[in-house]
Amino acid sequence: MDIVEQRLHAAGLVLPPPIVPAGNYAAFTRSGNQLFIAGQLCYGPDGKVASQHIGQVGVDVSVENATIAARCCALNILAQAKAALGSLERIEQCLRVFGCVNAAAPFPSVSLVMNGASDLLVLGLGDKGRHARMTIGCLLPRNAAAEVEAIFEVR
Amino acid sequence: MDIVEQRLHAAGLVLPPPIVPAGNYAAFTRSGNQLFIAGQLCYGPDGKVASQHIGQVGVDVSVENATIAARCCALNILAQAKAALGSLERIEQCLRVFGCVNAAAPFPSVSLVMNGASDLLVLGLGDKGRHARMTIGCLLPRNAAAEVEAIFEVR
Amino acid sequence: MDIVEQRLHAAGLVLPPPIVPAGNYAAFTRSGNQLFIAGQLCYGPDGKVASQHIGQVGVDVSVENATIAARCCALNILAQAKAALGSLERIEQCLRVFGCVNAAAPFPSVSLVMNGASDLLVLGLGDKGRHARMTIGCLLPRNAAAEVEAIFEVR
Repeated sequence: MDIVEQRLHAAGLVLPPPIVPAGNYAAFTRSGNQLFIAGQLCYGPDGKVASQHIGQVGVDVSVENATIAARCCALNILAQAKAALGSLERIEQCLRVFGCVNAAAPFPSVSLVMNGASDLLVLGLGDKGRHARMTIGCLLPRNAAAEVEAIFEVR
Repeated sequence: MDIVEQRLHAAGLVLPPPIVPAGNYAAFTRSGNQLFIAGQLCYGPDGKVASQHIGQVGVDVSVENATIAARCCALNILAQAKAALGSLERIEQCLRVFGCVNAAAPFPSVSLVMNGASDLLVLGLGDKGRHARMTIGCLLPRNAAAEVEAIFEVR
Repeated sequence: MDIVEQRLHAAGLVLPPPIVPAGNYAAFTRSGNQLFIAGQLCYGPDGKVASQHIGQVGVDVSVENATIAARCCALNILAQAKAALGSLERIEQCLRVFGCVNAAAPFPSVSLVMNGASDLLVLGLGDKGRHARMTIGCLLPRNAAAEVEAIFEVR
């Protein structure tokens, strides 16, 4: 366990197994020092999206549950980064996070929900987890409550 | 014709002419070895969006037609890459694809639709076409059924 | 005032103070020569989103007002770039703009709205402001009418 995983463990969190892409694409790609992670849905540690993380936030899913869903997305992103890098200590900076919240009606809390992902990245990576963020509300694959994509600077 | 276009030809597909941006922006930009392609709507080879590729998927547009629309987007992306690079053989890797499907109600098949784009990229580029992908459902310019954006590593 | 700000001034526009992120993330990050700017909502120069820039475009917000909102987003992006770089003359190229327009029903003018951002970037930066653009309609934090994210090549 690298130091990032140790921090997650201390908070009672475990890196899930990396999710295998369901189509003709990759979980991650690399360009020089940049690592691109594919959008990660809110799969739980059992590889399934929990029923309380399925549906539109504010209608089917509470803000509290959606925030946990966004954290699941961020854990899946770190799981992919671990698979790509061997150790999360090779992350120099989380450059960009694109966070999508499942919402269909005006809903002021999309940023709050996405804090679940941002807080997890900073919990694990410290200042290296502090990213430029874009958050929107839209529809998502499998009607999941949240999806998060990221780019990292790595070595 | 480079080898990528030959593979497309063998599948009965032709690179369309690159679409000229309708506003004050560029079809592509370059940063070192990275090529950024602007979001491409599902224009067909005649430079028009076919009527069966206009509207919301699952309501106005079938999943089958939307998948073809996503493939049109990917062909337009390759057309822009060709215009930028001269030859598609200068693509080292498709790094990232952001795929947007026109959808307004929960709709579980957005990933299936976007496979139309992913499969085309892998058909043309082989493993170099395998990208980190983010897929969402949202509204799109001209009420097109699909829009796809991409970043490539090139030489 | 650098030359970019002078051009904005000549058009009656002023760089607003950079907006402080509301969560555990950064206003910008840097990777080599690339500067990633977090998604910027349409805050005005007073640090607030004007009431005519709140709501869904085509329903609550006119296309004209939304276009001005998109311009506000682009001004906030330049304000962040100025904070990151010291001078906007260190921008070599705007590589990518991701423009989101608050819309919930099919709405053909999302591209027109986002021209408010593109035109501002080209006004300030000239050809260096000409970016690869992706535009969608979706829901946005605080129910703002527009949000814009950007990546720049800088020195």
